[in-house]
Amino acid sequence: MAEPLKIALAGLGTVGVGVIRLIDANAELIARRAGRPLHVTVVSARDRSKNRGVDLSPYAWEDDMVILGEREDVDVVVEMVGGSDGPALALARTTIEAGKALVTANKAMIAHHGLELAGKAEDKKVALKFEAAVAGGIPVIKALREGTAANRIERVYGVLNGTCNYILTVMEDTGREFGVVLGEAQAKGYAEADPAFDIEGTDAAHKLSILAAVAFGTRVDFASVATTGITRVRAADIAQAAALGYVIRLIGMADTGGDGLFQRVQPHLVHCDHPLAHVDGATNAVVAEGNFSGRLLFQGAGAGDGPTASAVVADLIDIARGETGPAFSVPVSELEPLAAAPTGHRRGRAYLRFMVADRPGVLAEITAALRDAGVSIESMIQKGRADTAGEVMVVMLTHEGPESAVSEAVRLLDGSPSLSEPPLVLHILDN
Amino acid sequence: MAEPLKIALAGLGTVGVGVIRLIDANAELIARRAGRPLHVTVVSARDRSKNRGVDLSPYAWEDDMVILGEREDVDVVVEMVGGSDGPALALARTTIEAGKALVTANKAMIAHHGLELAGKAEDKKVALKFEAAVAGGIPVIKALREGTAANRIERVYGVLNGTCNYILTVMEDTGREFGVVLGEAQAKGYAEADPAFDIEGTDAAHKLSILAAVAFGTRVDFASVATTGITRVRAADIAQAAALGYVIRLIGMADTGGDGLFQRVQPHLVHCDHPLAHVDGATNAVVAEGNFSGRLLFQGAGAGDGPTASAVVADLIDIARGETGPAFSVPVSELEPLAAAPTGHRRGRAYLRFMVADRPGVLAEITAALRDAGVSIESMIQKGRADTAGEVMVVMLTHEGPESAVSEAVRLLDGSPSLSEPPLVLHILDN
Repeated sequence: MAEPLKIALAGLGTVGVGVIRLIDANAELIARRAGRPLHVTVVSARDRSKNRGVDLSPYAWEDDMVILGEREDVDVVVEMVGGSDGPALALARTTIEAGKALVTANKAMIAHHGLELAGKAEDKKVALKFEAAVAGGIPVIKALREGTAANRIERVYGVLNGTCNYILTVMEDTGREFGVVLGEAQAKGYAEADPAFDIEGTDAAHKLSILAAVAFGTRVDFASVATTGITRVRAADIAQAAALGYVIRLIGMADTGGDGLFQRVQPHLVHCDHPLAHVDGATNAVVAEGNFSGRLLFQGAGAGDGPTASAVVADLIDIARGETGPAFSVPVSELEPLAAAPTGHRRGRAYLRFMVADRPGVLAEITAALRDAGVSIESMIQKGRADTAGEVMVVMLTHEGPESAVSEAVRLLDGSPSLSEPPLVLHILDN
Repeated sequence: MAEPLKIALAGLGTVGVGVIRLIDANAELIARRAGRPLHVTVVSARDRSKNRGVDLSPYAWEDDMVILGEREDVDVVVEMVGGSDGPALALARTTIEAGKALVTANKAMIAHHGLELAGKAEDKKVALKFEAAVAGGIPVIKALREGTAANRIERVYGVLNGTCNYILTVMEDTGREFGVVLGEAQAKGYAEADPAFDIEGTDAAHKLSILAAVAFGTRVDFASVATTGITRVRAADIAQAAALGYVIRLIGMADTGGDGLFQRVQPHLVHCDHPLAHVDGATNAVVAEGNFSGRLLFQGAGAGDGPTASAVVADLIDIARGETGPAFSVPVSELEPLAAAPTGHRRGRAYLRFMVADRPGVLAEITAALRDAGVSIESMIQKGRADTAGEVMVVMLTHEGPESAVSEAVRLLDGSPSLSEPPLVLHILDN
């Protein structure tokens, strides 16, 4: 059998420890599949003395994480430190510059600096891999980079954030409001103490920008992802959607069908016949539509130490086998620098929800604005008074039409004293 | 850019033509992803004069398909002839012996001769690839071979035959009987004129035996797949299953959890909360359960020229990139020769359906047999007279128990004049 692949682990949180456990538990079958053993030779983290429930004595300890890639006993560095910049980025740069491969689970770093790192990796002819950065244990980067490589991908979209999906699913099952469910999720460890990255959609946007680059062969463009989180979704929206045959899911969606690269993260109404309507709890799922393959769905655990370690070690096995091709499927110099697509001419159906004062004339004002903007209404439901005194919920589904018309209607209603909050606009994903 | 990959196509049916169309339509992006162009140099089929709706003039024509791999202008042969033996096998052998790579969509050949061919390919250090042989356009061979390579796969199962799934879905939607729906499917081209391979489960068994080998690292063992098709499923079974919260799907399932390799293709009751319950029409789906990844689902079109071509060309791109590792993930010599697992000690719930004469004592006879065999009944439904005079349908769901008990009950009832046909036993797949 060939020489072992010598691995440095940087960062020993739950994922880092998961990688150690996995390489230990499945050592024999990994060696058979990789053609050689994977050996962790050295580890590094902030606090050496912390008890992590795993025996670190077989591994060398490196205090200065940034020089891991320069060590003789290292072929590849696994970066599990986190953060788009700082030590993670410094480590990534020095590792690749030292001519060593880099595996990372760091979606923020790849979304912000993936092109720079991939370019450096090509120069040095080393692998840069980040399967674990998107959709946890689902091998979706490999699926897009290799499995569907024969296709022009028309569209890629999915449920990319387990925390949001967990919260929306619990709201659906219990009828509780967002804030309450978020608090419970935090207490159970399903949501971070500072949940903003998840619930504001940033984490999903990081992942979407990486998926889009691999799927379309375009340059990573995180900055242009139009991102809306789930904080404004009410229990009443979910109930109303259910009555109409939909669930609400935070969907990240990208395509190149318009005039540029379209990327959006937003809660959607998903029709109950669509496969993503059945993605519950912390599960992730990605749909890719290829011009020959048709629609493909990849689903599984979006986070957790086991699934994430599974993805990290799959990358290590690829490297052990000698798979060192371009990180984003094509060389960085060949990635298209597509501008962000204008969204106004996009056509679709939308769910509009208005919280209004319960007095005469309000409905006339809203419908006039919709008429003036050219929005055609398919159905309207006015729900009896909500708990909050004097407030009424009005829900409309639009016919298919340009998104610009809906935006114009919202603009016309801006500042209206009849509305107690800005209208909520959710796009609709039908089957 | 590097030299083109020179490709010979053997067999110009819909899939072969689909491969030509795909390589033409997506040539530029394929070249970027593969690092070099894919060039079809020569084609071969039985009838040169047939109009296939595609211009064959750019390609050389070879009358003797079997020598394609020996030509100077060929790096890789794509076998789309079909049949487990005959010309397809002869072509596969001569190609690999000539030191050329082989890509095939031929599940029957891989199920029967995959080990021999993979061994020869290893000797010659050439690639043998068969992504298109299982689940059409879904890159599930790659997912199992590489994407989940870090995991011990506990179980792999799925909806592997689009024809059966289409028939079952239409029966579900329309309430029509199997024979009627099969006839319609044949008329529409969704089922073959000779549908036996599909409806008897053989096609699904071919695919399952390949999936199991890749997932578990065991030797392909098609002969030991316990196979039951869908021909005995009645509209009333589907209606009864629906009333209980289940759909009926032909499931291929394999695991190594018992004392050996378990492989079975059989119609199952699938709980409506299980992801496979939403796999409708000609769609395929595969579930893999890894010891670190958890449950992963891969879903998409199971057949058709576009999806199949997508899988074939993905293999070609891998070969163009230099990916030539072991076909079944580990070298043939390291595949475990696991014996077929005994099934008697397997535990589960089952759906039992009896068609009985409508006269006193019949139910007592059945329930006595179940009691004597130690089968515990969870619920029982006796449906009013069916259309056929004097025949009554009795359905039971068992509690979880050993499969051997159910088999024993069926044996005790064997030949009973009270039963108008042997009991139908379907295993249950809960969430």
